[in-house]
Amino acid sequence: MKLVAFDGDDTLWHNEPLFWATQDRFKALLEPYCPPEHLAERLLATEVANLGLFGYGIKGFVLSMIETAIQVSDGQVPNTVIHELIERGKHMLAHPVHLLDQVAETVATVKAGGHRVILITKGDLMDQEAKLARSGLADLFAAVEVVSEKDEALYRRLFAKHGSGCEACVMVGNSVRSDILPVLAAGGWAVHIPYAGPVWAHERAEPPLHHPRYARLDGMGGLPGWLSEQ
Amino acid sequence: MKLVAFDGDDTLWHNEPLFWATQDRFKALLEPYCPPEHLAERLLATEVANLGLFGYGIKGFVLSMIETAIQVSDGQVPNTVIHELIERGKHMLAHPVHLLDQVAETVATVKAGGHRVILITKGDLMDQEAKLARSGLADLFAAVEVVSEKDEALYRRLFAKHGSGCEACVMVGNSVRSDILPVLAAGGWAVHIPYAGPVWAHERAEPPLHHPRYARLDGMGGLPGWLSEQ
Repeated sequence: MKLVAFDGDDTLWHNEPLFWATQDRFKALLEPYCPPEHLAERLLATEVANLGLFGYGIKGFVLSMIETAIQVSDGQVPNTVIHELIERGKHMLAHPVHLLDQVAETVATVKAGGHRVILITKGDLMDQEAKLARSGLADLFAAVEVVSEKDEALYRRLFAKHGSGCEACVMVGNSVRSDILPVLAAGGWAVHIPYAGPVWAHERAEPPLHHPRYARLDGMGGLPGWLSEQ
Repeated sequence: MKLVAFDGDDTLWHNEPLFWATQDRFKALLEPYCPPEHLAERLLATEVANLGLFGYGIKGFVLSMIETAIQVSDGQVPNTVIHELIERGKHMLAHPVHLLDQVAETVATVKAGGHRVILITKGDLMDQEAKLARSGLADLFAAVEVVSEKDEALYRRLFAKHGSGCEACVMVGNSVRSDILPVLAAGGWAVHIPYAGPVWAHERAEPPLHHPRYARLDGMGGLPGWLSEQ
């Protein structure tokens, strides 16, 4: 394998738990106006409706929470709640980066094994750059691509730019929808390392269990072994 | 000149007027709580304080407006106002891109003249990609770099990546602070095309009028002539 590309959020470092913690607090704050089980549904609908304009990331998430709070409370939600949502967004943006198990060793091992190693991550440019800097991994990557959406055309373009054709490139990530399916469609290899925890409803998809260029690993530790077998 | 790099906002297309129009409406909405001349000052202070976490762009601007609205009204601003600020943000994000005079012809002429042409723009990844797509200029650029901050190190890196050393690269932009001073510091050339209209206070800086690698043009139309003289 010439090129090994890693996803960032929930592949190299924990990310979803930050969103879930904020969403739990959001549910508690809005409980006077909306039952928690409906609120999650309303928030998701707002997030998905806003995705085309806001993209992925914390700032868009906060704006969608505020919009949902005003909607479900019929304009009754107090400013103290809206202010707290903004402060929680800042807290999320400033949050330390916690690497997943065996990540630092594995990326270093893969690089030392002669593979070209890059990061392909979705989201807010500034936020992702800051996370990478705080992760301590920045020096391991030959290139970093922050993208607004991960589709087949994107992988073709990046695998051509950084690798030498899709058949010699592998993407390692936790999201079946973003890191696996479009890579396989582009002709590349995909290693799926599921994240332990609930998956954001918008990212859910069925893993292509029997695809010849698909592998599923329980954790990062298995990656060098898998690579050496290809 | 081997490489000609263009800034996007207020160099290739109008951008500031969108922010000023929203800010005018913001002042009108908040007038019951804060005199307009103080409000601008309070908003700028909030924006600058949030820049490190939010970066540049419309979503951060909206969040800073909401934060300022709650502050200056002592929590009295109604939800209808906050909701309108979010909707105005979406309106800004979806706004058509209006090119400045002679931009399309000039970029095409420069490219046809054998220069490598790229775009270096600050801001939100998704927003900038969408604007470039709507501008109709995307095919003219050999590369597009959306960056979170423009400093000397950034220009050194991008001029090495896309050009062949700073002394054969020129940056064309409207912001003295972001497009001119750091480029000259890096050893490159800088062409300043001031935007007709007020400059965001955070971007204001004195132009280096007598620097040997600095030029000031009244509009895009003068660029091919300037390039041919170098």
